[in-house]
Amino acid sequence: MKYITFGEIMLRLKSPGMERFGQSPALEMTFGGGEANVAVSAANYGMDAMFVTALPKNDIADVCIRELRSFGVDTSKIRRSGSRIGVYYLEGGANQRASKVIYDRDHSSVSEVQPGDFDWQDIFAGADWFHVTGITPAITQNCADVAIEAMKAARSLGVKVSMDLNYRAKLWQYGKKSSEVMPELVRLTDVLIANEEDCQKSLGIEAAADVESGELSQSAYEQLTARVLELYPNLERIAITLRESLSADMNDWSACIRDDQGFYRTRVYEIRDIVDRVGGGDSFCGGLIYGLLHLEDSHQALEFAVAASCLKHSIMGDYNRVSVSEVEKLMKGDATGRVQR
Amino acid sequence: MKYITFGEIMLRLKSPGMERFGQSPALEMTFGGGEANVAVSAANYGMDAMFVTALPKNDIADVCIRELRSFGVDTSKIRRSGSRIGVYYLEGGANQRASKVIYDRDHSSVSEVQPGDFDWQDIFAGADWFHVTGITPAITQNCADVAIEAMKAARSLGVKVSMDLNYRAKLWQYGKKSSEVMPELVRLTDVLIANEEDCQKSLGIEAAADVESGELSQSAYEQLTARVLELYPNLERIAITLRESLSADMNDWSACIRDDQGFYRTRVYEIRDIVDRVGGGDSFCGGLIYGLLHLEDSHQALEFAVAASCLKHSIMGDYNRVSVSEVEKLMKGDATGRVQR
Amino acid sequence: MKYITFGEIMLRLKSPGMERFGQSPALEMTFGGGEANVAVSAANYGMDAMFVTALPKNDIADVCIRELRSFGVDTSKIRRSGSRIGVYYLEGGANQRASKVIYDRDHSSVSEVQPGDFDWQDIFAGADWFHVTGITPAITQNCADVAIEAMKAARSLGVKVSMDLNYRAKLWQYGKKSSEVMPELVRLTDVLIANEEDCQKSLGIEAAADVESGELSQSAYEQLTARVLELYPNLERIAITLRESLSADMNDWSACIRDDQGFYRTRVYEIRDIVDRVGGGDSFCGGLIYGLLHLEDSHQALEFAVAASCLKHSIMGDYNRVSVSEVEKLMKGDATGRVQR
Amino acid sequence: MKYITFGEIMLRLKSPGMERFGQSPALEMTFGGGEANVAVSAANYGMDAMFVTALPKNDIADVCIRELRSFGVDTSKIRRSGSRIGVYYLEGGANQRASKVIYDRDHSSVSEVQPGDFDWQDIFAGADWFHVTGITPAITQNCADVAIEAMKAARSLGVKVSMDLNYRAKLWQYGKKSSEVMPELVRLTDVLIANEEDCQKSLGIEAAADVESGELSQSAYEQLTARVLELYPNLERIAITLRESLSADMNDWSACIRDDQGFYRTRVYEIRDIVDRVGGGDSFCGGLIYGLLHLEDSHQALEFAVAASCLKHSIMGDYNRVSVSEVEKLMKGDATGRVQR
Amino acid sequence: MKYITFGEIMLRLKSPGMERFGQSPALEMTFGGGEANVAVSAANYGMDAMFVTALPKNDIADVCIRELRSFGVDTSKIRRSGSRIGVYYLEGGANQRASKVIYDRDHSSVSEVQPGDFDWQDIFAGADWFHVTGITPAITQNCADVAIEAMKAARSLGVKVSMDLNYRAKLWQYGKKSSEVMPELVRLTDVLIANEEDCQKSLGIEAAADVESGELSQSAYEQLTARVLELYPNLERIAITLRESLSADMNDWSACIRDDQGFYRTRVYEIRDIVDRVGGGDSFCGGLIYGLLHLEDSHQALEFAVAASCLKHSIMGDYNRVSVSEVEKLMKGDATGRVQR
Amino acid sequence: MKYITFGEIMLRLKSPGMERFGQSPALEMTFGGGEANVAVSAANYGMDAMFVTALPKNDIADVCIRELRSFGVDTSKIRRSGSRIGVYYLEGGANQRASKVIYDRDHSSVSEVQPGDFDWQDIFAGADWFHVTGITPAITQNCADVAIEAMKAARSLGVKVSMDLNYRAKLWQYGKKSSEVMPELVRLTDVLIANEEDCQKSLGIEAAADVESGELSQSAYEQLTARVLELYPNLERIAITLRESLSADMNDWSACIRDDQGFYRTRVYEIRDIVDRVGGGDSFCGGLIYGLLHLEDSHQALEFAVAASCLKHSIMGDYNRVSVSEVEKLMKGDATGRVQR
Repeated sequence: MKYITFGEIMLRLKSPGMERFGQSPALEMTFGGGEANVAVSAANYGMDAMFVTALPKNDIADVCIRELRSFGVDTSKIRRSGSRIGVYYLEGGANQRASKVIYDRDHSSVSEVQPGDFDWQDIFAGADWFHVTGITPAITQNCADVAIEAMKAARSLGVKVSMDLNYRAKLWQYGKKSSEVMPELVRLTDVLIANEEDCQKSLGIEAAADVESGELSQSAYEQLTARVLELYPNLERIAITLRESLSADMNDWSACIRDDQGFYRTRVYEIRDIVDRVGGGDSFCGGLIYGLLHLEDSHQALEFAVAASCLKHSIMGDYNRVSVSEVEKLMKGDATGRVQR
Repeated sequence: MKYITFGEIMLRLKSPGMERFGQSPALEMTFGGGEANVAVSAANYGMDAMFVTALPKNDIADVCIRELRSFGVDTSKIRRSGSRIGVYYLEGGANQRASKVIYDRDHSSVSEVQPGDFDWQDIFAGADWFHVTGITPAITQNCADVAIEAMKAARSLGVKVSMDLNYRAKLWQYGKKSSEVMPELVRLTDVLIANEEDCQKSLGIEAAADVESGELSQSAYEQLTARVLELYPNLERIAITLRESLSADMNDWSACIRDDQGFYRTRVYEIRDIVDRVGGGDSFCGGLIYGLLHLEDSHQALEFAVAASCLKHSIMGDYNRVSVSEVEKLMKGDATGRVQR
Repeated sequence: MKYITFGEIMLRLKSPGMERFGQSPALEMTFGGGEANVAVSAANYGMDAMFVTALPKNDIADVCIRELRSFGVDTSKIRRSGSRIGVYYLEGGANQRASKVIYDRDHSSVSEVQPGDFDWQDIFAGADWFHVTGITPAITQNCADVAIEAMKAARSLGVKVSMDLNYRAKLWQYGKKSSEVMPELVRLTDVLIANEEDCQKSLGIEAAADVESGELSQSAYEQLTARVLELYPNLERIAITLRESLSADMNDWSACIRDDQGFYRTRVYEIRDIVDRVGGGDSFCGGLIYGLLHLEDSHQALEFAVAASCLKHSIMGDYNRVSVSEVEKLMKGDATGRVQR
Repeated sequence: MKYITFGEIMLRLKSPGMERFGQSPALEMTFGGGEANVAVSAANYGMDAMFVTALPKNDIADVCIRELRSFGVDTSKIRRSGSRIGVYYLEGGANQRASKVIYDRDHSSVSEVQPGDFDWQDIFAGADWFHVTGITPAITQNCADVAIEAMKAARSLGVKVSMDLNYRAKLWQYGKKSSEVMPELVRLTDVLIANEEDCQKSLGIEAAADVESGELSQSAYEQLTARVLELYPNLERIAITLRESLSADMNDWSACIRDDQGFYRTRVYEIRDIVDRVGGGDSFCGGLIYGLLHLEDSHQALEFAVAASCLKHSIMGDYNRVSVSEVEKLMKGDATGRVQR
Repeated sequence: MKYITFGEIMLRLKSPGMERFGQSPALEMTFGGGEANVAVSAANYGMDAMFVTALPKNDIADVCIRELRSFGVDTSKIRRSGSRIGVYYLEGGANQRASKVIYDRDHSSVSEVQPGDFDWQDIFAGADWFHVTGITPAITQNCADVAIEAMKAARSLGVKVSMDLNYRAKLWQYGKKSSEVMPELVRLTDVLIANEEDCQKSLGIEAAADVESGELSQSAYEQLTARVLELYPNLERIAITLRESLSADMNDWSACIRDDQGFYRTRVYEIRDIVDRVGGGDSFCGGLIYGLLHLEDSHQALEFAVAASCLKHSIMGDYNRVSVSEVEKLMKGDATGRVQR
Repeated sequence: MKYITFGEIMLRLKSPGMERFGQSPALEMTFGGGEANVAVSAANYGMDAMFVTALPKNDIADVCIRELRSFGVDTSKIRRSGSRIGVYYLEGGANQRASKVIYDRDHSSVSEVQPGDFDWQDIFAGADWFHVTGITPAITQNCADVAIEAMKAARSLGVKVSMDLNYRAKLWQYGKKSSEVMPELVRLTDVLIANEEDCQKSLGIEAAADVESGELSQSAYEQLTARVLELYPNLERIAITLRESLSADMNDWSACIRDDQGFYRTRVYEIRDIVDRVGGGDSFCGGLIYGLLHLEDSHQALEFAVAASCLKHSIMGDYNRVSVSEVEKLMKGDATGRVQR
């Protein structure tokens, strides 16, 4: 299965362990970004994954490409242009202290790409799936234009398109709001992935809270997903991730999906010692697409996605370093963490 | 707001992570001590904090001073005398295994200071607050004398005085018991900070346990605090920290206060993955004094103090590396630990 | 008290922290193995412990011996022969992701020992106790033969013999099944240690699950232990460890024992932030034998064993780095993890 | 002595030890930049040093400021504006493989400062010396304008001005050449510091190579310095650093100076195991200015400067962490490196 | 240019820095082996490099493959069979203390490959060059047979064959001596690479030492190379590396070559702070083959090879992480190690 | 051969690599001290070495003892008394910057031992050699008294006594000068080890410098050693180490000896990349005593000693981690540092 993603990849500089910035003169150097993370997941599941982006010609970008290549991600269509790779600084949280991200991604190589820079006919040759997120159109007008260009090319070539809305309040600095741009992209999408805030901020659709409890109940999600499919009839299905954040280390994690088979919600994973939750949503997307392409039905696909992303919370770094068999073991119910020997 | 503390600062040598001493040939080198920790908290909240102590003239003490200075603590009145900086070795605990402290602080520079060594008139010029703990008078008779000298000078200059009783059984080796010395210091105090054991050991005042439950109930603390204020009418208020230690990693944390507005208890924070609890009480003092000087009332001040010290448990090292806005975010109820980006 | 163990010790290569293999170019280098771990426990409790094995003549094996010697384990009877020390690679798990062990132990020096290679008369001179596990006879036919040779020598010299069944499915590759070999060894044993799976796989004795709950209740363990003692009347007692694995970080831990005083079950420890559970069972054996030799009765011994092994879960590495006084503190109920200073 | 510098400070991200980028997922995080490095040197020599720049309001810039403050550098006039701190990536060389710098400094906060942003009257109040380098005017036209604005203000207030030409080929991207801009700044300078390439690239003045040897002889430097003083009669003196690079680890290091007392060349230091040569020239400037303000004559000052910068080559990081007494010990001839105890 | 190598790749476990084994509980985990090292060099020079071997199906071997893939080496023909990856332990030397290698490579997956296991027709399709070393036939008879099988296949398909004699005294344990096996392989070779010891031990050809000096002079190498070409007329050329080992840190490094254009010797590089010399000879082979395929003549190729391997001595790990432009810069004479910025 | 040493062992806290104190929040934790270092050398050469000292009862001292035990040093006579282990802080130098030692050893357990505290009859039972250094009598009067007590006991039991004068200017703080105390100890010595400064400061005997060269020539050492033996006729022999310190990394190292066979000087080792020179003199003593007990004559013993201590300069930490065969390899002339495989 050939799988394409397009977007930004950044240098991720994390303070060691749970240190605040500057406690020691060290930063952990890895890489990541929504679409790249999904590509790595796909490659780890044995898919033929390609990641498309722009990166400068320098040694730091070379390290980034080497790491992607180590997972088997095809990097041959990465454009070497512009002058910098975006950076994000990450401080790991603990207990009631949240993790913290500082972006330094303006003027990155990918922010300066133009329609016409990539040969999408060539890139999508033989492809089965194209994935993009709401981060890319939030960077610059250029990026939004190229994302749309790519989505249109994909659809014209019969490539299935998925989109993770992934609303980021700190982006969208180029003069347009998410809700002005994203609906056009959703209309070019087959499978939409979102959380509740995404739907509200990017599509203007709010989930109705229960009158009595003040909480979002399952019925609220049933209505929300139904409403999205109604407004965007091009969508085959919509999947929603449900994260209940108890503290920086403790989350409950599950998901729901709606398609023509109706509404379905997965089991809930109680995650109690989070190693790294950055990339959790991306690992869900990677698992979902694998599941939709390889498993029996969308319920199985969703259970695979939520188990995969549950495991991501035990792994440091943006990338989800798990195999299909590890995800399936958890799907089948073995969450005991007994030593495997 | 100008804020002065006086006491001992030590070299803190911790085994890495949760290793027992000697598992690897490495120690983490930081610094800390009750009053220095409070000074750093105050500086981090934007106050004009000064820390007064004695340190030898060598490179290790220079590193200590450089670190204090990095937080903006005024180190200009630190006396360079004597021949050694005290050391404490720390081993981090986990689960049912407690953290362990080994002191090597005898003969330190500060233990040898004499009344007259510091020019308190100069030090307290323009000062708003002076903080001292029960550790200093426990070191040597000299130290007790200098602490009393400083407290008297502060009072005579209209500087508010706070005292954290901070009873340490392993100190008090110079021939006097805590309960023989501390009452005099408490009589020079405006704001007293303590826990239940401190009141008993240093002031001889015990909290009455509930007959039925065998536990210390809220009413016991109501009575205990009332009794202290009654016996020491010079005190404006007394604050008590309430720690329920479930294991080395899991504590419940709250506090109560009594002043002329009555008795008040804060919300309880459930801390489930403690990174480092050393300095937790000091961060409470730092937060309380900030709160009393800057916030609306003592209830707000206490909530600030307990939220600040809750966050301290997520930070490695004696110092509480948090800002006012981070504490306020938690005070306002956001304990979800969601990634900030 | 002189205490002998015989078996394999391996180089343990662990990925740092909770990293998956290869996330950074580093491995933590320690050593361990069932019987060696028990010997280190015994030495840490002040016993005169000797570990017998075979190791090649090279610098890596020298490091292994130096580490054993640092604990005070007598290494003078270790045979230097063969060409390699076995290796096991360990990846630490978290949450729902299990820890993972990869063995590379074939052709190790110990796997090639022959009956007659060790002078058991000399080794057991003055000894009080001999401990062996079900791992050794699982390595090669040679190893099984030498284990039996040693057990017989011990018994003939009046040395008490304990055996930890320790079933490992990935071993037993030399043409025999555990259940074909182990009964003979159990007949040479005085104190048997096992878990429920061990009894089934090595002795063919299954615990009866409750009809109603589907769970193993206490009565099932009462029956299981009774059945083993009935079938192996040479056994003085059998101890069973009870681990409930909630996730890679969270286990409930307790044990039960049956001897001529009847059946006894210990308190349950809730372990919530496991640092390393490898060696947990071995630390139980080490504690049990110490207890049986030094404490009042087998109930005390079992409580000591389960407290000791509870503490092991807070310590990185195969070896249980705790003292008698630390175990006794926990036995007496102080599980609060308050800082010791 | 009050000492001001103005310029850019960057986050320095170095691969560990002598690793190439990406060999391990780690970067060493420190800070540095020509003028900041000089300020730190001055502070380490006990001078009252202030560093003026612009930095964004984020945690990474806070760490930068904390580190400067730890040395005692006055950071109170640093402007918090713009959106990013510049970054430079550094890979340490060895033998015939050179160290490598990758700049990512475009769009930094300081690159966007405007004339009028700083209150120079306030900054220079009571100041004795102002130092700037040729890097600042090479960043943007804005930066050049602000540098000139500052230099003029300094001169009008009687503050001595020094300038390190510091030609960097990769800068000067905003449409002007160094030789078009720098002469104006040199005309506002009292003490000029340079190397041979700087004079050629920034001032268009070449040293004459010996006809016979093809090497730059002392007479060439005598002529070069005379020529610069002739063309810029405002200059009190010019100092030239002389580095003979034998390999990444082995350099010979000395300097010469010309003023109204004539021409003088220092002893040559043979440096054979360079730890870090980045910041070597800056440490020379710091030493020279200290020397000119505190020592007997310019020859002593130059010997101090070259000894100080010799020591810099033994210290990791941009900053020269040495004291006056350490420099004086080397000046007096003790280069034996015997253990000091 | 498509380039194939076949041989063993091992897990390399090095003690950190210059520590002796066991000084700290850490090992650096990388991978390497003669032929793999050459493949990585080729890939780094932009060639289409493939490495063929056998590796077990486990996570450690996966890490090995991921690292090769990160350099762009084609790993698609690696056979997953057998049960272990060979290990070598490395301790770095310093001064008069030599580096030390301990092999644990018996029973590795590659030692058990059989003729017929690889489809050489498929592997060599479109290939330009095949490289093998004298290590492979030294492992087992199987390995020798497969190496010969591969060389014959290569020659039959018109693929050029190079061989690095690479004599290792500790191998050759399967009953044959190097000199009994290697001549057959040399007769299947086009380009032979060796050092003086290799020629003696593997081919029985000794270099004549100068009568007068007792040293190997250039004339000795002229004669030695002439003799080899005379005895093996199938050889196009023979290259000899010349290492003068002054200490563990200081080597002089050069090479000579003989072909139908006569004898040529390169410049000598004085390497004075060796970071890691393991893989030095392999990096020479990688450079030579690149040079022979891409540069003007064999003298240029040899200068490229010796410059490339000179740079290898500045890089930790078996692999030579340098680019063509970096080698060319050194070839052109820039060995000054000046910072590149 | 049973070998006893008595003296102080300290916790050694070193800044990592070549960092100045405080550059990173880490210290390397090892142990060392003159006599302990000699004991470890002896144990590494297979001798039956015992180290006698006093250490407090705490976990840090336990780590110290465990490390000694790992080398096979007998620690059974170490007295557990007093309250602290001495500490020394070490900063590694480079080039012209010297290494730096800061002592914090006052009030250590060993400084408080009294005559009568050790049962020397028991300790020296079966012993062949006793070694002590001039550091011990420099600590306190008590220590001097105990050293003399031990030396007398050794002599009375026929145990050979060696003494390393080891003058330390920063010690001798208790009211006596070295030259007032040491002559008495030298009169109890059989084999004296010193350098030129030691003879002058402790014995008041100066080496005559050559009139012409101003340098210490061989003849000066011939005269110096003759003079010492003349004044202390009890001495069998005196050995002098000759260190020429070119920089912190580069030393020339040799030694000379005088006994009834006359004067002998060893070859000179050029050490060019010193890893750690602390403990260099101690490793010489350890080698010399081994040599005198095991080798042919005192010339061989001296060559062994100087080769052993040459190798020490390549090893981090106080202890010389080399074997007899490694020293012999260097003695026989192999200083090429070729990889051993």
